[in-house]
Order: sequence, then structure tokens, then C-alpha cells
Amino acid sequence: MPRSVSDRRTHEPGGRTINSPQTVSPRRQYSKVDIDALAQRYRTWGRWGPDDEAGSLNLITPEKVAAAAALVRTGRAFSLAIPLDRNGPMPARTARVNPQHVMFKHGGDLLADWENAQHGMQSTDDGVYMPLQCATQWDAFCHVFYDGQTYNGHGPEAVTSQGAAHNSIAQVADRVVGRGVLLDFPRFYGVDWLEPEDAIQDVDVEACARAQGVEIGEGDLVLVRTGHMRRRREEGEEHWGDYAAGPAPGLGVSSVDYLLPRGVAAVASDTWGLESVPSESLPEVKFALHVVLLVNAGVLIGEIWDLEELAADCAADGVYEFFLTAQPLTVTGAVGTPLNPIAIK
Amino acid sequence: MPRSVSDRRTHEPGGRTINSPQTVSPRRQYSKVDIDALAQRYRTWGRWGPDDEAGSLNLITPEKVAAAAALVRTGRAFSLAIPLDRNGPMPARTARVNPQHVMFKHGGDLLADWENAQHGMQSTDDGVYMPLQCATQWDAFCHVFYDGQTYNGHGPEAVTSQGAAHNSIAQVADRVVGRGVLLDFPRFYGVDWLEPEDAIQDVDVEACARAQGVEIGEGDLVLVRTGHMRRRREEGEEHWGDYAAGPAPGLGVSSVDYLLPRGVAAVASDTWGLESVPSESLPEVKFALHVVLLVNAGVLIGEIWDLEELAADCAADGVYEFFLTAQPLTVTGAVGTPLNPIAIK
Amino acid sequence: MPRSVSDRRTHEPGGRTINSPQTVSPRRQYSKVDIDALAQRYRTWGRWGPDDEAGSLNLITPEKVAAAAALVRTGRAFSLAIPLDRNGPMPARTARVNPQHVMFKHGGDLLADWENAQHGMQSTDDGVYMPLQCATQWDAFCHVFYDGQTYNGHGPEAVTSQGAAHNSIAQVADRVVGRGVLLDFPRFYGVDWLEPEDAIQDVDVEACARAQGVEIGEGDLVLVRTGHMRRRREEGEEHWGDYAAGPAPGLGVSSVDYLLPRGVAAVASDTWGLESVPSESLPEVKFALHVVLLVNAGVLIGEIWDLEELAADCAADGVYEFFLTAQPLTVTGAVGTPLNPIAIK
Amino acid sequence: MPRSVSDRRTHEPGGRTINSPQTVSPRRQYSKVDIDALAQRYRTWGRWGPDDEAGSLNLITPEKVAAAAALVRTGRAFSLAIPLDRNGPMPARTARVNPQHVMFKHGGDLLADWENAQHGMQSTDDGVYMPLQCATQWDAFCHVFYDGQTYNGHGPEAVTSQGAAHNSIAQVADRVVGRGVLLDFPRFYGVDWLEPEDAIQDVDVEACARAQGVEIGEGDLVLVRTGHMRRRREEGEEHWGDYAAGPAPGLGVSSVDYLLPRGVAAVASDTWGLESVPSESLPEVKFALHVVLLVNAGVLIGEIWDLEELAADCAADGVYEFFLTAQPLTVTGAVGTPLNPIAIK
Repeated sequence: MPRSVSDRRTHEPGGRTINSPQTVSPRRQYSKVDIDALAQRYRTWGRWGPDDEAGSLNLITPEKVAAAAALVRTGRAFSLAIPLDRNGPMPARTARVNPQHVMFKHGGDLLADWENAQHGMQSTDDGVYMPLQCATQWDAFCHVFYDGQTYNGHGPEAVTSQGAAHNSIAQVADRVVGRGVLLDFPRFYGVDWLEPEDAIQDVDVEACARAQGVEIGEGDLVLVRTGHMRRRREEGEEHWGDYAAGPAPGLGVSSVDYLLPRGVAAVASDTWGLESVPSESLPEVKFALHVVLLVNAGVLIGEIWDLEELAADCAADGVYEFFLTAQPLTVTGAVGTPLNPIAIK
Repeated sequence: MPRSVSDRRTHEPGGRTINSPQTVSPRRQYSKVDIDALAQRYRTWGRWGPDDEAGSLNLITPEKVAAAAALVRTGRAFSLAIPLDRNGPMPARTARVNPQHVMFKHGGDLLADWENAQHGMQSTDDGVYMPLQCATQWDAFCHVFYDGQTYNGHGPEAVTSQGAAHNSIAQVADRVVGRGVLLDFPRFYGVDWLEPEDAIQDVDVEACARAQGVEIGEGDLVLVRTGHMRRRREEGEEHWGDYAAGPAPGLGVSSVDYLLPRGVAAVASDTWGLESVPSESLPEVKFALHVVLLVNAGVLIGEIWDLEELAADCAADGVYEFFLTAQPLTVTGAVGTPLNPIAIK
Repeated sequence: MPRSVSDRRTHEPGGRTINSPQTVSPRRQYSKVDIDALAQRYRTWGRWGPDDEAGSLNLITPEKVAAAAALVRTGRAFSLAIPLDRNGPMPARTARVNPQHVMFKHGGDLLADWENAQHGMQSTDDGVYMPLQCATQWDAFCHVFYDGQTYNGHGPEAVTSQGAAHNSIAQVADRVVGRGVLLDFPRFYGVDWLEPEDAIQDVDVEACARAQGVEIGEGDLVLVRTGHMRRRREEGEEHWGDYAAGPAPGLGVSSVDYLLPRGVAAVASDTWGLESVPSESLPEVKFALHVVLLVNAGVLIGEIWDLEELAADCAADGVYEFFLTAQPLTVTGAVGTPLNPIAIK
Repeated sequence: MPRSVSDRRTHEPGGRTINSPQTVSPRRQYSKVDIDALAQRYRTWGRWGPDDEAGSLNLITPEKVAAAAALVRTGRAFSLAIPLDRNGPMPARTARVNPQHVMFKHGGDLLADWENAQHGMQSTDDGVYMPLQCATQWDAFCHVFYDGQTYNGHGPEAVTSQGAAHNSIAQVADRVVGRGVLLDFPRFYGVDWLEPEDAIQDVDVEACARAQGVEIGEGDLVLVRTGHMRRRREEGEEHWGDYAAGPAPGLGVSSVDYLLPRGVAAVASDTWGLESVPSESLPEVKFALHVVLLVNAGVLIGEIWDLEELAADCAADGVYEFFLTAQPLTVTGAVGTPLNPIAIK
């Protein structure tokens, strides 16, 4: 029997909630054949032409953008990005180090030449070395290949040292603004956070959306809060712990059966991998949702988004939809980029 | 007599326009005393409290954001960022190299292990080394010191190797969305582009805004098109030439007398320095507008913005205002960041 | 057989006891006044002129170099550098990440264009982002300031964002070849490695040198083996553990009373900080030996040197002296650099 | 007195004429078939076993190293590296930017906290982003593939994003010390520098070596001075000009017929590509010497070496042989590295 939210409730001293139907459904298990079938079912290759590199973002029509802008009522804006600095979640010893912000010139340089620098104008300057997926980010479609192909059927030669010739995140530089919808699962379940390995199923998505009074529709940018980022923040000094690559709560495979028929354009979460880790499709398919969403459906995946402040606001006013402006950086050929998504209510 | 647009018109073979009153007004000349007086006049230090780090962005109230969102009618979105890659405008031999996009893993790696990699899921990954002001960017207030101080009176010790303790661009991560207004000077004057050293004066701003049917108001994010980027693109193979640090058209000092009393929150342009280069305040003050806007008024400066596509659209529909979402990256302590501004009409 | 020094010690709470002759002498404790006196005693400022930036490396005269070369008998060469890669000792979340080696073009790129690339010539290319003191390294004199000064009396304005105007490691690009001497303390004491906090005293240095049959003389480059690197390698999977910044065995403060009167030019070790950590001079002076050696005596400090293979060879043939070629990289203005020291016997 | 070779030549359009004996012999022309034959003739694959990654460096036996050390007589040392900084020869807009030295902490930081920092110990720190072949460097064997193979028959899958699994420069970390021999062609010909496209032929090498009184033998590290670096330094402000990728003097293809039968282990020069550029084998083989030396003979190629000071010394004392310590950095999997070669006489 899968380990799930309910397992932990009964012996939680703090007793966050009475065990009730509203817990994450049990994990399921998928073979490669299962995932292949899902991939085929939701494949959109060719739907917007053989040269398309925007995938389901095509569903965000100008009309959808205009309608999303009309959701702005109070004008409150929320940044959903974590800081880009050395205190980020990345561990040592992989290519994904935390952002290395370096100063090219700073106030200390003025002080070192104060006789002159105290008069007139002086400037400061800086730079950064950073992996493009080390913090709040979009995965480009070409971030993932399945059976040797990425979105719209491109093979591995589409991504070389020159970057991605197809499906780079830079190709959708002006395509990722629209209606955002937040699904706040911990609040829905009355807990502080979901547990690692919790896998949010289709019925869970449906129930949460209903309870929070939002309908998910075509072109939506769906934000999935698990509380996992909050948990890692609250637990201990070296708070990130295994956040960057460890077990995590997240979407289960069946969630796509709810999301994709409704035409979502992107899904983002407060974990490092969006989907429940370990994946329900292990060992045969490492990250099933990446395969279905990025490679086949052409749906962007957002990771390491900080949804805490926004979620608190949504809980306060009961409004779980908003205008979301989540444009990537224009790094030519990039297979992902950091970004600073802004939700406006 | 200053060299100005009109100088060149009389002998332009293409004869873009009849010489007429609508050319950029003559350059003026300012001493340090003049600039000091302007700095004092427009200084907002303390206006939003001694700890304020948002400056005139405080004028973008939630109400302003909501009103700006209401400008979205058709939902067409325009990215105003140039590509972040090695073909950017930066020259060799300064700290500001072009962005160095590096692949950590790519399709070629799959091919090198094709027996395995053709089955199941594979991923790609990448990173970047880049100066934060090498492309489309915001200058943070702390990018500039004048007489030893940056916005709100902080001294040089406010910006160290740890980054900016005050006035970092990251402090306004959620503050730079609002009403955008485009002033398209080349179109106003009927030319392809302004000339280096052209200095747009207060009366020029007023005339252009009037002609293009926009009023500039409190909290506005003003985009100043000079055509200089287009020119460098159209001229020659190594098209950027001296774009990154050479003479350029731009705002003249008197422009602030029009813009600041109206409460603008940010000004951005399609040149590397916003203001006319060389500055009208040389040699005593290197970049007078930087001193007045960043240090004293607390008004953000945007540089190297690509306004071509947006400008063409504005010319087509005659609408020069829009919703502008121009959030910076959240690089902790950064004195500037690249961004991908999106204008939505 | 004891595996470490501590095995043979009495573990009384009061601490370091009198041990058998073959153990490190007890730690001592120094105040800032003590260290100031030592600093003054061994200060060489001005000895080689007010503009000198080579310090005690001046003692490596051409004659000394020639004499050192004459030590080469069999021609066996030993690299004393650890690999420069992501598996290095540096932890996450400080500026000193491990070296980030990035490929600009590789064999996979050939495979992605195999039709063409299989014929004729193709090339690969790569780069690195790395802290200059993340692996086997030299500290430049200007790496440390004491009471506001670095070697030869330069103040803080000598090292700015432009790098070090004085005392950069690049200034001694051709000065660090000469006679190397290894002091292998673990072998001297019959243990595998010294323990963290072990502080090698003057008498210990003397005894070890005598036992190993080497005399330390003017211009020598002295290598101090503690076994700490070997220990971290042998212990556990994530073997580096706290190697980069944790407690470590190393030279005690009194060691300078043996080394400096003899005119050593550089001292290097297999730990991250050369001296015993925590320093015997805590809390008033963080790293006393750095203060005495770098700032005052003008003696280079080498850290994270891999002495294992060389030490085994010295133990085998009983010869603890050799030609050592330990030139730094020529990074202009650098306050340290990685290097690949070669010992030749 | 002629300032360059060409001054003494007849400038007939048909090209390189018979010159006086003291000029470089005429360029020759090679087809791919020619180069293939040379490659086969000098191929050493398998000679030192199927797993060998040191190639002709195997010829530097310990005995050779010892004999080379015995060449040290006066102990004078010469660094042959150019500075690693932003003023290097690399242009903008390729992956090979100049080294980007960045300070992590410097004296200005002390000044920003002077109240505290003036007392006790403080440290500075720095880092670098740099292409590994942007300055004085070794090409690893795996830097070049010919007809899909690198040294000892490895295919493209030997070099991936993980670096080179075979033939990395790090594999020869302790192998590149030995006898160095300088061939100073400009001095031999009585000119300041050779001209771009000058191709030094086998007979030229022989004549120069004879005139300078050195015999080239097994395991030698041969330094070829063309004067091209000096020329770019002396000509103009932005002195590097096209140094990094433009036409250059250098070895002609036939030079290998002199060098390889004698068993040289490495060849380095003061140009960016060692061989005459354009190659004598264009267009069919871009860089013929790279193919013959790196891929087939397993002979290291050194580029951008600064031979000026050493050459002046050799001219002064008439001694063109010396001990050369030219160890690469230990960047795991690197296809080249910067280094600081030291010649000791």
C-alpha cells in the first residue's frame, strides 16, 4: 500500500487534521508501455504545423491573453521567483551549482580611490555564472528527449553545443503570459505540506480545483503548490537539504488525464521536478510527466517556483485565478531559463 | 551650432523628409553646478521613507497596475529583449563580454551513447556566464553613485563584493509592471533613426507625445525609441559596431523637466546608455541623466531594449500605450539585470 | 598498530598530553600581542626594496635553481595537483565552488553532423569557471591583509576589482622553481595521518627533518604532509567531507621559528589551510601563519597539494629533497592561482 | 636593413620566389591524399599499447628528464606565458573570449568595513571564467579528430559533455617536462618576424637548427619562434588585431619530415595555430599539422607561447637548449589547458 498523506496524519503530534477523504490518492505504478500509450494519446506533434516550436502555448491566443488581463482587479503583484544567489538549493559536485554572482566593480572600488571617487559620477557593475535550471525556471521542450525525440519529432541533432536549433525556450519569449490558476493542495487538505512521494492524481486535481472555485481551461498556466519549498525552508539551518534532487511530492501521472484534455499550456510547481519523485513510472521511465508534457503535449514545465505569498493571498480572498506573466529569458538556444514570474490579481 | 538631425536632412539622397520644425532641438551644455541643481530639484530621498529602495516605482500603485492591465485590448504581446548570445553588442577586452551560453549536456551526448539513449528518457542541460548589463537590462539605482552617494543617501559601503545591500534591482522584483508608453522619435520626425549626439529635449518629448496621442503620467514606464539599434543592425555584417559604448542619440538633460514632474517610474531606450552620448554635461558629469534619474529621482533606467516590432505595431494602430511587464531577475544584490520585457496591447 | 596519533594518546579531557616522542607536540595558545611580535620579528618588508613583490622568493637565486636542478637523478616526475573538476573538495553555497569544466564543442557535435564530420578535420573546445583557490593552489601575498596591510606595507587600495596592483601571484610567474623538501609527519610518527587540531611545532619540524635526513635551507620550498587528504579520501563515499573549511592538522605557530630563520621561500601542505585549524591564535587572529608568512615574511603558502605519491616514493628511496617546479598561472592581478606542481627526483 | 622577410623578396604576383638562402622556403601545396599518406607514415597508434594516452611523450623517459635537468647551468628561469586577462588576443563573439578574472573579495571590501577590517586578519579571493585555449596553451590530442578519429583510434564518443574519456591533457599532467630546444627563425633569417603565410619547411628547420648549434632529438620539446607575437605587440594600440584567428607564419607541412623521425614529443610556437595559416593543405584539410601531430603522431601542440625573452637570452649566450617544465593544468577531461611554461637555462 502506498505511503501517502493519510499514513502520516494518524501519528502527527501536531495533529494537523483529522484523517478525511481529502488526502492525496494512492500512488499508482506505470510501465513503459503505459507511458508510451499516454504519450501517444496526448501527442500534439504537427497540430500547429511541422515547424511549430510553441506547442500548447499556441492555445494562449491573443484573446486568451486579453481575457487573462481582465482578471486583474486590485493590481497586487506577486513575484514567484526564489533569489538567484549562492544560498540556493543546488548541491556541490554537479553542473548545477547555485548562481555565482560576481561584482565587476563596487563601492569598495570607490573607497579605494576616494579622493577622486567622492566627486562626480561613478558606476558599479556585475555578472553571473549560473546553470539555467538552478532556480525558478522553465524547462524548454527540448530539455527532454524520449526514445530519441523531442517535441514535434526532432532528433538529438537538434540540440548541440550551439544550443537548441529547435524547441529552445527562447522561441517562446513572448508566448508565456496568460491566465494563471493556483491549485493549493496543502490548504485543500488542511496540512502544511504534502509528503515526498505523494502523487497528486486526476481526481485530486479535480477536487482541489472544485474546492477552490476555479475551472481549468484552454491555455491556462497551472501552478501546483505542494508546500515542499516551505517545508525545506522551515526545517533546519541548511534548509534546502535534498530539495534539488531528492524525493518530493508532486503531480502523479494520472493528473495529465485531467489537465491535458482541458488544454493547459504550462504547469509549474514549488518542487524541483513538478512530478512526484520518485516517479510513478520508475524504473522504466524516469520522469513520466516530463515525457508526456514536454516531449509529447508541448506543455511547458516550471520548477522551483515560490508560491507561498501568492497562495496566502489566494487563501485570503478566495480567488485562485490571476494574470500571470512568466516570460523566459531570451538565451538563444537555451534548453531552459531562470525567470521571475509575476502573478497579478 | 550643434550637429542635429536637420544638418543631415538637406543632403540626404533618399530625402526622408522636408526639413521642418519637427527635428530634435539643439544640444545644450551643462556644468556640474547645473546638474547638481537638477539633482536637488528632483531628489526624492526620504519621500517614501529612509529605508525605501523602490523610489519612483512607488508611484506604480496597485491601482495603477490595474489600470494598466485594462489597456490590454487585443492581447498581442511583444518581447522587447535582444537575444542573449555571443552575437550581442559587447566588444572584446572589457568585463562586459557577450553572454556565454554553455551546454552541460546535449543531443550529441545522446548520440555518443545511442545504444542506450535512443530508449527511454534523456535530458539536456545548460548554463551561462554573463555580465548583468550586457544586453536588454535594467540599471538598478545602485548602479550609479554621485558625489559618493546612491539613491536615498547610501554611501559606497552599500555595494560590496556581497552585492548591493541597498538599492539592488532584486528589491523591486515585483514592482516593475504597469503602464508603458512609447515615444517613437524617428517616426515622429519622419526619419529612420536619430543621429549619434542627438539630444532629445523637453520640448521634443512634449511634441512627440502630443503627436502620438499619449499623455505621460504618474508611474509610467516610458520607452524612448531612437532607431539607433535598427541602424546598427542594418549597417554592415559586424553590425553592432560601436553600439555598446560609442556615441548615440538619446535623451537630453532637459527631458527630465518634462518627465519627472509627471512622475514617471522608469525610462528605457534602444541605446546602450539612454541619454545622448556624449552627455551634454561632459566633461564634468559623465552621464547626467543617470545622476538625476537613478541617484536622485529613483527612476529606473532601461537600456538596449529592442523596440522595433512594438513601434511598428504602434505606428499601425496609432496606440502608443500598453501594459508593460518588465520585472528584473531576482539576482540578490545585483546592480542591474537582463530581462525580457513584454508589452501587451 | 595505531591508525592515528590519537590512538596512542591518553584521552583525558584536559587535553593534549605528553606523548611518546613520535607524536606531535602539544598545541599552544597565542594572543594577538604574541602574533604581532612574531610578525615584527620575521617581517622582511623593504629587505629587497620598497617595490619588491617577490618576498622570500628572492632567496631562490639562479644559483639555488641550478643547485636544485642538480638534485634530479632518476628523472621521475610527480604531479602534486588534485584534479580540477566538480568532484573537488569545495562545498555548495560559498563563492568557492568546484571547477566547472564546460565543453564548447565535443565529439557529440561531430556525431550530430556525422555525414560531414566523419570526413576531414574536426576540433573540440572547452572552458572553465573556477575560483582560483578551489584546488591545489598558491596563496599570493595579497591574499591576506593584517591590520590593514599586505606584504611590503601596501594598503587595501592595492587590491581592487581590477585585481591586485601589488603582490599578485602573477608577479612571481617565473620565481617558483627550486629545491623542494618533503616533511612527512605521518610516516615520521608511524601513523596514517595526523588528527585535526594537531599543531606541528618547531621541535617537531626539526625532529622530522633530522629523521628524514634533510636539512632545510635558504630558498627551499617546503612540503608538509599531514595525511589529512589521504584520510578524507579513504573515509566514505562523499569523501571530502569538511576538508575545505573544517578542522585540520597542520603547522603550529612555533614552526615558523624553525623555518623562517632558515630562509624558506614557500610552504605547502595537503590541507586546505596549511596551519592547524582551528588556529592556535584564535579568536584574536584567525590564521596566524598566514599573517606571519604571507604578510610579513613574504613566504608563499600552498594548499590542497596532493603529496601521496611523492611521499611514497620518498619513503621508498629515503630521499626527501627534489627539484620542484611550482609556477603559478599568469592570471593578471590574481590573489592566488591553481597550479600543477611537479616534483622531479 | 630589412624589417621582414618580404622586404627582401621580389613581389611578383605569381608569388613566393626563390629567395636568398636566409629566407623561408616557398610554400607547398598538399591534397588530402598527401596528408593521409603523411598521417599514415607518422602514425604511432598502438606503439605504446592500445590504452596509451601519452603518445610521443612516452619518449620523454626518466633518463631524458634527468639529462634535460642537467642542461641547467646558470639557473635563469623564463616564463613563456602571456598574461591571462581581458587584454588577451581573443576577439568578441566566439566562445573563446579572453579570461574573465573576477574578484570575490578585495581591498575595497575592507575599506567598506574599515572600522573592523583595519584590525586583525582579512583575506581576498577571486575566480576566473576562461576558455581553456584562449592564451598560452597545450592542445590535447583529443582537441582534433581526423576522419572521425583522434589519437590511438578513439572515435567521437570519446569526448562528450563529460569531457574527454581518452586523450585529455590531464592524462599527461606529469609528462611534459624535459629538454626544450628553441628554433628562432627571425634571428636565423636576420629579420624581425616572419610574414603571415610563411611556411617553414623541413630544410628550413634543419638549417636553423644547424646554425643555432642544436640537434633535435628524441623526446624534445621544440619551440618555434616566428616573431609574429612580437609583431602584433609592436603594431598599433589594439595590438592583437587578427592574431587569434588570422593568417600567420608557422611550420609548413614538410617540417614534420624533419621533426618526427627525430622523435620530438611536442612542438610549440608564438602563433595561435603553430602551423602556417592558411594551411598548405587547404581547402581539403584545414590544419594539416594538427592532423599529423596530434591525431597521428601523438605529439602535443603548444600555441600562443611568448618566446621573446627566452629568445633574446638564447641569442645572447648562443645556447638554444634548456630544461623546459611545461606541465598542463589538471582539468579533468580537458581538451586543452592554459599553462605557464618555464624554461630554465
